[in-house]
Amino acid sequence: MTKSELFNKISADTHLKIDEVSATIETLFELIKQEATAGNKVTFKGFGSFTVKKRSAKKTQLIHKKKTISIEEYYIPSFLPSAAFKELTKSL
Amino acid sequence: MTKSELFNKISADTHLKIDEVSATIETLFELIKQEATAGNKVTFKGFGSFTVKKRSAKKTQLIHKKKTISIEEYYIPSFLPSAAFKELTKSL
Repeated sequence: MTKSELFNKISADTHLKIDEVSATIETLFELIKQEATAGNKVTFKGFGSFTVKKRSAKKTQLIHKKKTISIEEYYIPSFLPSAAFKELTKSL
Repeated sequence: MTKSELFNKISADTHLKIDEVSATIETLFELIKQEATAGNKVTFKGFGSFTVKKRSAKKTQLIHKKKTISIEEYYIPSFLPSAAFKELTKSL
């Protein structure tokens, strides 16, 4: 399902205009990004939680350049699906 | 930020009622779960994609029971953050 198909379906189900649906979802994603970037966790019961995960500093080899480089510690966005969501996809 | 704080903020930003915001987001998450459970990928540019990942069948040891059990292949919900989202959280 494409994003616009999805927005159309939500608009039909909620009786809201497409641009109202779009504004709501774009604002939702901006806030989730904002919270994750501040290191906060945002949880939606039955769906999952958005947070960040730390990747420790490490050394890695560039074989083709015969060189070892060090990669600094960094953070990546992370989504933890709820138990209910995991149950749904288990037996695909 | 709690879910209700988030919904309040979205309601203020979009001038929609809280229950309109809540209906939109609950419907969004239901559709994402539905698509993921059907094995489909749902992508939101600038935020990320929701899909499922396969976990292969494996054998594992129950040390305290001195027994080996086999775990069947299964699928888990997976979120792939967009490059833009990863860039935001890199230097937390």
